[in-house]
Formats: sequence, C-alpha cells, structure tokens
Amino acid sequence: MKKALLLLVAITISSIGFSQKVNKEDSTFIRQIYNTSLLDGMSYNWLDYMSNQIGSRLSGSLGAELAVEYTKEQLQELGLDKVWLQKVMVPKWTRGGKEFSYIETSPGVTTTTDVCALGGSVPTPYGGLKAEVVEVMSFEELAVLGKNEIEGKIVFYNRPMQADLIQTMGAYGGAVNQRYAGAKEAAKYGAVGVIVRSMNLRQDDFPHTGTMSYGDTPEHLRIPACAISTNGADLLSTTLKLQPNLQFYLSMNCKTQADVESYNVIGEIKGSTFPDKYIVVGGHLDSWDLGDGSQDDGAGCVQSMEVLRILKKNGYNPKHTIRVVLFMNEENGLRGGKKYAAEAKKRGEHHIFGLESDAGGFTPRGFSFDVIDGDFNKIKSWEPLFETYLTNWFTKGGSGADIGPLKKEGIANVLSGLRPDSQRYFDYHHAKNDTFEAVNKRELELGAAAMTSLIYLVDKYGVK
Amino acid sequence: MKKALLLLVAITISSIGFSQKVNKEDSTFIRQIYNTSLLDGMSYNWLDYMSNQIGSRLSGSLGAELAVEYTKEQLQELGLDKVWLQKVMVPKWTRGGKEFSYIETSPGVTTTTDVCALGGSVPTPYGGLKAEVVEVMSFEELAVLGKNEIEGKIVFYNRPMQADLIQTMGAYGGAVNQRYAGAKEAAKYGAVGVIVRSMNLRQDDFPHTGTMSYGDTPEHLRIPACAISTNGADLLSTTLKLQPNLQFYLSMNCKTQADVESYNVIGEIKGSTFPDKYIVVGGHLDSWDLGDGSQDDGAGCVQSMEVLRILKKNGYNPKHTIRVVLFMNEENGLRGGKKYAAEAKKRGEHHIFGLESDAGGFTPRGFSFDVIDGDFNKIKSWEPLFETYLTNWFTKGGSGADIGPLKKEGIANVLSGLRPDSQRYFDYHHAKNDTFEAVNKRELELGAAAMTSLIYLVDKYGVK
Repeated sequence: MKKALLLLVAITISSIGFSQKVNKEDSTFIRQIYNTSLLDGMSYNWLDYMSNQIGSRLSGSLGAELAVEYTKEQLQELGLDKVWLQKVMVPKWTRGGKEFSYIETSPGVTTTTDVCALGGSVPTPYGGLKAEVVEVMSFEELAVLGKNEIEGKIVFYNRPMQADLIQTMGAYGGAVNQRYAGAKEAAKYGAVGVIVRSMNLRQDDFPHTGTMSYGDTPEHLRIPACAISTNGADLLSTTLKLQPNLQFYLSMNCKTQADVESYNVIGEIKGSTFPDKYIVVGGHLDSWDLGDGSQDDGAGCVQSMEVLRILKKNGYNPKHTIRVVLFMNEENGLRGGKKYAAEAKKRGEHHIFGLESDAGGFTPRGFSFDVIDGDFNKIKSWEPLFETYLTNWFTKGGSGADIGPLKKEGIANVLSGLRPDSQRYFDYHHAKNDTFEAVNKRELELGAAAMTSLIYLVDKYGVK
Repeated sequence: MKKALLLLVAITISSIGFSQKVNKEDSTFIRQIYNTSLLDGMSYNWLDYMSNQIGSRLSGSLGAELAVEYTKEQLQELGLDKVWLQKVMVPKWTRGGKEFSYIETSPGVTTTTDVCALGGSVPTPYGGLKAEVVEVMSFEELAVLGKNEIEGKIVFYNRPMQADLIQTMGAYGGAVNQRYAGAKEAAKYGAVGVIVRSMNLRQDDFPHTGTMSYGDTPEHLRIPACAISTNGADLLSTTLKLQPNLQFYLSMNCKTQADVESYNVIGEIKGSTFPDKYIVVGGHLDSWDLGDGSQDDGAGCVQSMEVLRILKKNGYNPKHTIRVVLFMNEENGLRGGKKYAAEAKKRGEHHIFGLESDAGGFTPRGFSFDVIDGDFNKIKSWEPLFETYLTNWFTKGGSGADIGPLKKEGIANVLSGLRPDSQRYFDYHHAKNDTFEAVNKRELELGAAAMTSLIYLVDKYGVK
C-alpha cells in the first residue's frame, strides 16, 4: 500500500513538473501564434480567393488546376526553403448537365425532387430512367426482399444519419455505406438504379454528393446512383406509403473519363537539427463540384498553409523539416495521399508526425491521435497549454484520409487530425451550400492557430 | 510531509469515489435527456414559431405581447403544476421610420452609410443633423480633446472589439462602454451626436443596436446616438483621414414613450421533498427589433422551456420546485429580472439555483457558476458526466443578467450561465441578421440537453 501511495504521489508530482515546465517555456509562444492568426492571419483571405475566384475543385477539373497554381504561388511568396508540385494521375469524373428527377403518382402527375449524381456513377440511359421504387433501410433488408421484389426497380436507401450521436462523424460512418456500396449491392438483385438519402442531419433541399464504388460489378451491370435531399427523401417515403407503385424518373449525364495528370502541392521549411525527419501538415485541395468546397476542404488547406506562415513570421527555426502538403484527389480516389506516401517511402523520408485538417473550419475542440510508435502520455501532457483556447480535447483515434497511407507505408510515428466542432459539418458536406459564407473567419483562424501550436510542440519535444 | 501525502491521496480517492457514484446513477438518465432533446425535441419548433410567426419582441411591442401569450399557452400544454404571468411595467422605446445617414465629402457628394439608432436614444432634430466628425478610441481621448475640439461636432467612437481575445464576451465587455455611455460622455463636451462602431467582430454592413444610457444628463442636453456597421466605420475612418472636415448627416425618428404593462411568463413543477425551495431556469423573452431575436434570446427561452418538458416527459419527479421564467425586458431595463427577484424575496422563496441561457443557441461548451453560498467542488465533480457531450467546461464566473437580481436580494445559493461557443455570437447580436436561419437545430438541442442535465443534478444532489 505504501509503495502504491508513493507511486501515485510520484506520478502526480512528475506530471505537474512536466506541465509546469512546458507552460513556462511555451505558453508565451503559443499566445503569439494565436495573435498572429487572429490579428494578422492569411487563412481567410486565401480561402476567399480559392472559393470565390476559383470555386469548386473536383479532380481533373479546371478549378483543381487553378488551385494548384494559386496555392503554389502563395507558398512561394512565403519564402519557404522549397516549394514544388508532385505529379499524380487522378480520375476524371464529370457531372454533365444538371440532373433531373420526379415522382410520378399517376401518368402526367409529377413532383420534381432535388437529386444529384453520386461521384463515380454511370449516367442514366438516353432519355432517362423510369421505374417503381423499393424503399429499404439496410443491405440486410435488401437481401430479404431478394431478386423477386427488386428486379427492374429503383432501390431507395433511406436510413437517416443517427441524430442522437453527439459526434456527427459517427453518424456519418453509420449511414455512408448506403452511398458508397448501395449501387453495387442493389445491382446484385437486378435493380435498375439507386436513390440514396443525403448524408445530412438537417431537413433541407440540398442533395449531397460523395464517392461511390461499383466494386467488382461488371461494367454492363452498373446502375446509376443519385443522392436525394433529406426533404426529397421524406417526400418520396411518404408518397410511397400512399402509393407503393409510383414511378420515379431520373436523368443524369455524368461520365467517367480517362485519368489525367494533376499534382500535390508541397512546401517545406528545412529542419535545423533533424533535416531528414519530417513533420507534415495538410488538407486536400480537391473538392466536390456542387459548392466551392470551402469547408471540405478549402479550410484545411489554408489552415495548413497558415501553419508554416505563422511559424516563419514568428521567427521559429524548426528542428525537423516541416512540410505542408495540399493533397489532390481525396474525394474520389485518394491518389494524392497514396502518391505522397509512396514517394516518401522510396526516399526514406521518415515522418515523426502527420496532421490533417479535413473536418471543416469550425471552432476547434482538440485533436485525435493515431499513435503508431510514440508516447500518447507525452502528447496528452500538452493539453493544459490548449485550455485557454478551449481546444484541449486530446483523444486517441483516427487522423485524416490523406495522411493515412504514411501509416500503411510504415514511415510514421504519430498521425493526428484536427477535431473541430462537428455539429454543422453535414449541413454543408458535399452540397452546393458548402461555400465561403459557411465559414466563420474566427473559427477558421482558431483552427489554424491550434494546428500551429501543436506542430510547434511536436517539433520542439518530439513524440516519443 | 507524510500527512500531506495522505491528505493528497485521501482527496484523490474521495473525488474518484464521488464521481464514480454519480456516473453509475446518473449517466443513463442524462443519456435519456439527450435522446429526448435530439430525437424528440420541441425547442427548434418553438423557436421557429417565435421567430417566423411572431418576430422581434422589443419590450412594449406587439411582438413581445404575442410572445407572452404564445409561450404561456405552450407551457400550459406541458401540463405543469402551475403557469402564470407576472405583471411588470416596462419601458417602451420605438425606432420609428428607418434611419438614414451619409458622409458628405463636398456639397452634394455623399456616400450612404448603414446606421441604426441605439436603444433609448433621442431622435435627431426635425430635418436631421449634419456636422463635422471627431473620431476617438476612448473616453480618455475625448477628455484630452476637450470642449474646444468637440463642441458642435459628432463624436465617432471607433474602438473595435479585441479580436485576439479567445472568448468574445470579453471582447464585448472591452468595447461596449462606447455604446452604453458614449452619448453621455460626449454631451459633456458639447457634442451634437455620437456614432458608435458596431459591437461586431466581423466586417459587414449590419449596424448593431443595443441599449445606451444618458445617465444624469439633463433632457435638453441629450444627443442622438447611432451605431454604424463595421464596414461603415472603416469607411468613415478612412474618409476622415483623407478629409478631416467632412460632414456627417444623420436622421433618426426614435422615441421613448410612457411605460407599458407587460409580463414575465412563469411555469413550475412542484417539488416533492422541498416544495419551498426553488430552482429557476430561464432566458429573456424580449429582443431587439432589427432581427427576430432568435439567438438573443429566443434560443435561451425555448431551451429553458425544454428543460421542464424533458424532465416531465422522462417521468422525473423533482425534489425541489423547478421553475421556468421567461423574463421580459432584459435588453433595455431588466425590469422583468428585478420584478421576479423582488416578488420572490417578498414571498420568501429561497432559490438554491438559478440558470440562465442568454449567450446564443450555439454548441454548448459548459457552464459558469457564481457560487454565493454553495460548494463549487461538488458541482465541479459533475464535469465527467458531461465529457461525452463535450460540455464539461465548468468555471467560476458570471451567470445571467435576469437572474442576477436574485443574488442582490440575497435569496440564491448558486447562479449559473450556459456557456455556448462564443465565436459567432457577435455576428448576429442585436442586428437584423439575428434570425432563425442563424440557429442550428442540433446546437440548440445540445444546449437544452446540457441545461436539463445540470438542473437534474442540482435537484438530486443540491449545491451545498
């Protein structure tokens, strides 16, 4: 018992000791980081340009290429040690003319609904598609209905995101298989198309696109897939109850074209002590095509650029090489993330830390950490430094899609993701209202400052 | 040393013990509270009606009276033990026709600016007011300039809210004396009017109103006071640098009328064990007249109503009498709060706890507590129960304007204020964009659930 007591006291004292040391040395510099971001920030201006002068940035689009050029130029203006483009082949999927759809309750009696093609979908046949609709809530329900009930019909996946989950990312995770694999599953039973309830916790008229996959479905069996707005989904569901044999009409002109060349945009400040050890911070430059991708993930890009700008502006000379990477093609292929990791592996560039911001530019709550080969307690001991800023929620968990491949390649110690408040994220995610107006300047800047502070601590103290 | 060690260990163990007990007994019920709010909530529907069917609710206005009737009816439908109106005389100030203003750089060369009268201001003289402008950043600067530089001119207070403060309420506190006392101070030096930079951290075209006071300035010396949008303030400031003798024209038709009768709306569930001890939860029913007061403070009202509804719906039988009070006239008089406290004092109604929500319906971060005669450590020990909901920021601090008088009357143990994320609050505060669209359903509901959970714990465990 006595030993246990002493141990408890020792732990208490040592953790107090460490955090006090950190506090004294670092709280002033972190305050300086926040001041730079809030009083003299560039993130909001950059985002304004990307959103309002360039616009949406789907892989392979003109917008994506303009964004590559713009961000490269802006990084060059920061006077980093090196700025370059990393070539990557990306898929090119185009939406074509606007989708059109309606519910037909009797011949000629129709109600228009708000839909959009899911990314990667095949188009509808020439003249569109009209068929009866079967509503299901899960793949299990689909299997129970079987070929008899499904063949020749459109499958309507209507399982909503779970509103009682506090973190909306969890609610997304619980519903998104309908969007990603719904067409593949429905095709097995002879469905002619799928309609998916938008991944949105709000009732409104915006359909939310997003990537889908046919998996190993042979080409001639691939069926068109669209998202319907939450209001549209409720209307369709209600109307189906009144008239189960209604017809749904869908017209989409989307197309998958040949892969095209694009780029990751990379800038770095060379490390003074460990130039061959890397810290990377990034977001993804591509976006869906409906809005201008301000939240997903223009915000993460400009915040990541801001990290290097703030460190440089405050005369910080990093021990490790600090890189910003704006990844191409997170949304429908992850080619940029995979390419970056593969190249890093090839060159033996060991990454002690990777940080991604890809959950929106909302008020930051903290970070989650995927600790592969590091000391979470050490990282956790930095929490008190973030208390003043209410960003001291440090948890174990995932990081970001684009930096994930660094783990797969076995060249990362710790990966992390910024965790902003998630309540409003799916109001905008992949929809046409994901625009500049949806981003609050202060919330964006607080995120950039939190990221910079974390990168500073990682560089100074390491993660082991 | 040994004693100190044992004490430390004892404290550690006892606090672990307490929080574990609380966890076991209470986390299930709190989860139920959240489920009710998020899956089966009424707060958003109520707010929709108050904002979109009634609209703004300035004391003495038709909107305020309609809101009294509506909320009383809604509380009656909840089947509370008692619902009633508490009469209170309130000031009646009316804006009149829309304000008009411009900068005149040379005769006939004018630029219109966005202004609004401050609440309580006198009107401009018939035909408006035109004068030169003196820009100042503080009352100290005003005193240095003195009568010589100020007499016959309009004083322009242009000190911005401090953007480097993390909590925006602090930034508001540091700037709002310009609005509240600016006219009184400027009148001392013979100014003919005042223009105040809007209390807004964002650059936009919305002027933000708010209450002001002439203090003991004699009636014939009272000068008109308006707020100018942040964009307008920057334009005026820049133009003044180019042309210091420009003229500013201002026309306002506002008027203070005789006091009128209005009401606090009150509902209660009788306590089973301590019926004569009270817990109060509330917000203020009145709002400014430019928007519809959804954030300030429609949100707080519907959240407070929701607290009683959720407890009742989940079959909770409180020990103490739990009251919801929708206070009238917080914005320009606080008559409702004062009246409620005076009546409570008269009847000997001791309040063990008061909770106000008047900082917007944003994602809740926690609560602040004004501990008059209670045990903060006990309250603080409930924090872990709020961790899952990321609302575990419990601090000592202020509570809310309307419940403040309970402290002055000496009949409260602990007062508390909901602390939502504050970053966007001043984007809307007292401006015409404070409308229903500015409120996110989930954020509002999370606040209501956090408030209900706290009230539940206070009722069950007390605050001493």
